[in-house]
Amino acid sequence: MISDNKEENLAKAEKMIRDASKKNIDIAILPEIFNSPYNVKSFKQYSETYPSVTTDMLSSLSNELGIYIVGGSICEKEGDYYYNTSYSFDRKVNLIGKHRKIHLFDVDIKDKISFKESDVLSCGCKTTVFDTEFCKIGVLICYDMRFPELVKKMVREGAKIIISPASFNMTTGPAHWDLLTRTRAIDNQIYFLAASPARDIKSGYISFGHSIIVNPWGEIIAEADEKECILYGNLELDFIEKIRKELPLLKHARYDIY
Amino acid sequence: MISDNKEENLAKAEKMIRDASKKNIDIAILPEIFNSPYNVKSFKQYSETYPSVTTDMLSSLSNELGIYIVGGSICEKEGDYYYNTSYSFDRKVNLIGKHRKIHLFDVDIKDKISFKESDVLSCGCKTTVFDTEFCKIGVLICYDMRFPELVKKMVREGAKIIISPASFNMTTGPAHWDLLTRTRAIDNQIYFLAASPARDIKSGYISFGHSIIVNPWGEIIAEADEKECILYGNLELDFIEKIRKELPLLKHARYDIY
Repeated sequence: MISDNKEENLAKAEKMIRDASKKNIDIAILPEIFNSPYNVKSFKQYSETYPSVTTDMLSSLSNELGIYIVGGSICEKEGDYYYNTSYSFDRKVNLIGKHRKIHLFDVDIKDKISFKESDVLSCGCKTTVFDTEFCKIGVLICYDMRFPELVKKMVREGAKIIISPASFNMTTGPAHWDLLTRTRAIDNQIYFLAASPARDIKSGYISFGHSIIVNPWGEIIAEADEKECILYGNLELDFIEKIRKELPLLKHARYDIY
Repeated sequence: MISDNKEENLAKAEKMIRDASKKNIDIAILPEIFNSPYNVKSFKQYSETYPSVTTDMLSSLSNELGIYIVGGSICEKEGDYYYNTSYSFDRKVNLIGKHRKIHLFDVDIKDKISFKESDVLSCGCKTTVFDTEFCKIGVLICYDMRFPELVKKMVREGAKIIISPASFNMTTGPAHWDLLTRTRAIDNQIYFLAASPARDIKSGYISFGHSIIVNPWGEIIAEADEKECILYGNLELDFIEKIRKELPLLKHARYDIY
């Protein structure tokens, strides 16, 4: 769970990454807006300009532990502009991916949830795909996953794993979370991972939780419940190739038509 | 269930449409390859050149009953070429949509299912969206639904209901049928309808069945089991507009990026 105390949030993230690293992991993934409350009026107050206390913590930890870190997201300030930004680091301190959320969450679902990121945030305009020794990995943020063409573009750029720090809510989560994460994996024959904050029913924005890891056949290989936890999963890259050979969706696409 | 006797298959389709029309329906939808067995070696034998015994039955029935008919699909022969083709008729005899399956089902899933439509069939190269007094309706066929960009294109062309004659099998059906149909509806904020043959375990190709009607929030408003039946559903076009206003996915798309 994420509190309104940035120091506490960073300490918790660090501790959880350290705990996870004891299990010989390659990549640690944090959830969306993990160092501050997720609401429009907090964005400016908690924002940081790169390099910052949060990104320094993540990069030095990646180096110390020798793991990749996809650092969820934080509110980034650059000049007069604010972004919902995810920073990814390789095993040795280097920033290898910086994704600014492209699609801002501006919704108004009657009697359920109203949210308008664009009141404060500006949107990104680039896909984020980076190299690792395993394969190319793509990062997008939450609402971005609702746009299948974005995911397809990242896959055409070579991503075989797509990671989404995300925070669906108690309306969109039960209705769409599993369906979207699983179908993105199926359509693109990739591993699709989404990391959510735990549910805090006292928060102004109540996250659905349910961090999830889906394989290229659309099977859930690990899913959290609403409580705080570290979710582990083993990704088999050979399985991607097997599925792509058996059901050659990527080869069958007709970009001459659409 | 579909037999290897075309006359029987046509008589059954006609009877079921007549039965359905007693409930004051507007549109009747048949499944994929409804007048013959679904296997590559039957395609040529059962093929027809438009206008044909099957399309004549459908068009005259549309006129007699005063309903739209989306006539599943049949194997079409034109010149030396064969297609998996869906013919749609308005309430008065007229052909308003002709969809040739764009993506041919060429798969080879180890120890499960092997099928190669392209051994006999050629592929279509056009989206199919037509006007009705309700809204624009799009038609695609089965494997076409696996390509989200195709569905997005049809929606950009104005389709608010997409209909898919389809025949998933006992491998892809349990794994993907509900996920794909529901996510296409969610991503595009449309009604998505898929009509499948009933399951015949004695057939060379065993259909999953489970004809389904999904609303723009991704909820299943009607789903068949594996047995033969007429599935009814009431589509509320206002609900499309409500969902599109509350969660403006179509407005938020960034075609400058992808």
